Amino acid sequence: MSVLINKTYDEIQVDDSATFERTLTEKELVLFAAVSGDVNPVHLDPEFAKTTMFGEQIAHGMWSGSLISAALATVLPGPGTIYLGQELSFRLPVKLADTLTVTLTVKEKLSKNRVIMDTLVTNQDGKKVVVGTATVMAPTEKAELQAPVLPDITIG
Amino acid sequence: MSVLINKTYDEIQVDDSATFERTLTEKELVLFAAVSGDVNPVHLDPEFAKTTMFGEQIAHGMWSGSLISAALATVLPGPGTIYLGQELSFRLPVKLADTLTVTLTVKEKLSKNRVIMDTLVTNQDGKKVVVGTATVMAPTEKAELQAPVLPDITIG
Repeated sequence: MSVLINKTYDEIQVDDSATFERTLTEKELVLFAAVSGDVNPVHLDPEFAKTTMFGEQIAHGMWSGSLISAALATVLPGPGTIYLGQELSFRLPVKLADTLTVTLTVKEKLSKNRVIMDTLVTNQDGKKVVVGTATVMAPTEKAELQAPVLPDITIG
Repeated sequence: MSVLINKTYDEIQVDDSATFERTLTEKELVLFAAVSGDVNPVHLDPEFAKTTMFGEQIAHGMWSGSLISAALATVLPGPGTIYLGQELSFRLPVKLADTLTVTLTVKEKLSKNRVIMDTLVTNQDGKKVVVGTATVMAPTEKAELQAPVLPDITIG
């Protein structure tokens, strides 16, 4: 069981940085389609995807957005963070077996515990997949939580 | 099997509008945690959630973002849309059994088939949960696709 430890507003400093990594598999394509309702065949059907400009199945763009939100909520600032806003610019498609790294960097501390974070998603070739900026309200109280263990999810 | 029909750049007019609706259940909380990696207990553990400022389990903020992306990809403009960017401002928490409605409205047609869309998410009380703006490249070719049927997903 993993432990989630936050960084409070007082502890956070400009240029603090953290990363979060995930690899795209068929499982993410199916689960993201189910949870969002985006059943576009470019994500789900390899034969259809071959006929598109991408030539193969690609991830839902907002899957990268979900990784950014996960990084903010579990790593920096971590538990207790309130998500206020996000700007996203989608730059490159994500393909099966691509490994994405979210890099969060603190750009600015504002009043009322608000923090502006640079949110960059790169692939295994170091290319920018998504660039963006998050605004969060950082926690004021230190927290150290056991991450819940998810139930088994079976597909098909 | 449902059919996805797109609206091409030429067909799209300013003020065109479409909606997309989903209800939050335990299933969405677990699937979004699994697919994003955001295992924060405020989304997953009812006892822990009672101790937070929300008082009960809430949805991942980016779940609302995923509904916006699903609406763009499947309804307006629909299949063939390229997602270029999204701004999101998270206003209110989403609780179990809340029904969210994404309302997309075309604000502006730009060169190179780009379209600016207003992306509003409201709850069953008509309150604004997320406000934002999407930039997409609309399809130029008419498409009518069978939506793939997702495999069964079993939790637990």
